[in-house]
Amino acid sequence: MLEDKNPQRTPLGELGEFGLIRHLTKDIPLYNDTELGVGDDAAIVKKRDEQTLISTDMLVEGVHFDLSYMPLTHLGYKAAMVNLSDIYAMNGKATQLLVSIAVSNRFPVEAVEEIYKGLRHACERFQVDLVGGDTTSSTSGLILSLTVIGSAPEEKIARRSGAQPSDLIVVSGDLGGAYMGLQILEREKAVFIDNPDVQPDLQGNEYVLERQLKPEARQDIIAMLEKLEVTPTSMIDISDGLSSELLHICESSKKGCRLFEEKIPIDPQVYDLCEEFNLNTTTVALNGGEDYELLFTIKLEDFEKIKGNPNMSVVGHITEDENRYLVTRDDVAIELTAQGWNPLQEEEGEDE
Amino acid sequence: MLEDKNPQRTPLGELGEFGLIRHLTKDIPLYNDTELGVGDDAAIVKKRDEQTLISTDMLVEGVHFDLSYMPLTHLGYKAAMVNLSDIYAMNGKATQLLVSIAVSNRFPVEAVEEIYKGLRHACERFQVDLVGGDTTSSTSGLILSLTVIGSAPEEKIARRSGAQPSDLIVVSGDLGGAYMGLQILEREKAVFIDNPDVQPDLQGNEYVLERQLKPEARQDIIAMLEKLEVTPTSMIDISDGLSSELLHICESSKKGCRLFEEKIPIDPQVYDLCEEFNLNTTTVALNGGEDYELLFTIKLEDFEKIKGNPNMSVVGHITEDENRYLVTRDDVAIELTAQGWNPLQEEEGEDE
Repeated sequence: MLEDKNPQRTPLGELGEFGLIRHLTKDIPLYNDTELGVGDDAAIVKKRDEQTLISTDMLVEGVHFDLSYMPLTHLGYKAAMVNLSDIYAMNGKATQLLVSIAVSNRFPVEAVEEIYKGLRHACERFQVDLVGGDTTSSTSGLILSLTVIGSAPEEKIARRSGAQPSDLIVVSGDLGGAYMGLQILEREKAVFIDNPDVQPDLQGNEYVLERQLKPEARQDIIAMLEKLEVTPTSMIDISDGLSSELLHICESSKKGCRLFEEKIPIDPQVYDLCEEFNLNTTTVALNGGEDYELLFTIKLEDFEKIKGNPNMSVVGHITEDENRYLVTRDDVAIELTAQGWNPLQEEEGEDE
Repeated sequence: MLEDKNPQRTPLGELGEFGLIRHLTKDIPLYNDTELGVGDDAAIVKKRDEQTLISTDMLVEGVHFDLSYMPLTHLGYKAAMVNLSDIYAMNGKATQLLVSIAVSNRFPVEAVEEIYKGLRHACERFQVDLVGGDTTSSTSGLILSLTVIGSAPEEKIARRSGAQPSDLIVVSGDLGGAYMGLQILEREKAVFIDNPDVQPDLQGNEYVLERQLKPEARQDIIAMLEKLEVTPTSMIDISDGLSSELLHICESSKKGCRLFEEKIPIDPQVYDLCEEFNLNTTTVALNGGEDYELLFTIKLEDFEKIKGNPNMSVVGHITEDENRYLVTRDDVAIELTAQGWNPLQEEEGEDE
């Protein structure tokens, strides 16, 4: 439904692998400690006085995104966000990005340019150096594989394993929006497939659509925490849903938790849409995923520093025992389980 | 033709993404300055007193490999070699590896285990830390995306751009073997498709088959150069063929070259097979690719240090002007051109 009306279609083979990479990475600005970017066998990063962080993520067409409603520029931007988010989740600074793209020959050069437009926009906005990558053809579908390099001083790094009893559990922003955005896109796609003359009805749902199509990695939260002089005792980014991520922290830290349903931050638009789609808001927030908010724990004594901050919500606390509870609105403690999302499972109801 | 007779087939979805990664990366040994490997949002590398090198490469089924003759363990090993080779080509030490794999649901867990067996074998042999990755499903085909981290002291790094006039051009090992290995595999595959009862005739061609199926990144050459106290003025690994790589060095260094046909190191088995396949040996060595040997330039005064070394052949020298010549056996200088290999071009004669 978001068809590219651009008539220019340069076949990929015309430029060749090196020509294409040169073309895509021309005049790429460097913001960080990169000594040599694209153009050699490897990129070179200067000696640094901090630890280096490395993370990688792969996005596969038909599994992680659907090009029928995901514009390529947004896809490039989102792929960068998914990766940068992993560095912020260590309380680090993202410094370099490497991008590998496999595209089928049905894609023209202009399509790859669109993806790079999104990637470059992300790199500019988050001051990250695009230092390398690989572009190749695929027998079918589009695959993006990104690796992000970051840095952080040893004492600032927030691992998943550092949560301590009585630490407060904090979540940035609000949850469930990206999932509800996906529900709307899926619904409108179904309507469009039934009747291509019907225009998609996306009006009034801009917030959740943006959460799905153009998520923002929470670099601002990392900067805020630094300013507030709060070092999280543990941290993770919310890609698979609050419950799955909180369980990861509990497992890595060998602790328990009490998560309070009424404290989970949810946008009013998500409430309304859950009603419209007949979904339980808490379930959506717990298992929705793709919000790319940060989930972290802080020492109790740091509470005063974040109290009243509109970007952070205290949603519970860590316990010594290894019980992981969700405390419902009517004060019943039930076991927290992760439905999450399994990209290796065949989707139900999907035709093969 | 190399069918897996193993009857055990655990569906991928059964373990889930986290379960599978945990299963595959259990008890992975660390040899280098890794502070934290698999299991958090990012891996952590300790502060280091050297530059950091980063490179990434993607291998796509049907484009870079054919599972009908590439066993999965070999594929994992080769994927590692392709990546490590990029770090050695900077005269660096490979230290960490990240691996992302997209597999279709037709693959059982055991297939991914085979790939990891090859990867782990490579990591053990080359003393590299497997510190992260991503495993996901794909709508079709198998894709491997690897990122390798390395290190090198500033003054040792060999870029493509450092070649100077009168520098000697040196190549490690011998060339064309991997390409001839591929020719044999393609021939036997065609025979097999015509008549599945005919057993593949691979006897006597072990050397070139191993060059194709189990290439070795030349870490030993880097160690040898260090021992000989030779720092290459420029270096690149030969993935696309000698001519393509030499042209890269000339372009990056803004210099010319004279490459002597008679000096190009070629194994006797490659000579014999070229005759059998009616191919020109020099063309095969110049454009064959996938040998993963190192091509580098050294100062003229370092010649004595490598003279007579059976692992290195001087094949020409760098010139001030920007003319790139191949000097043939009958002493005619012809322009050096790269046919190389373009993974973005649709293959000729290939059915879609």
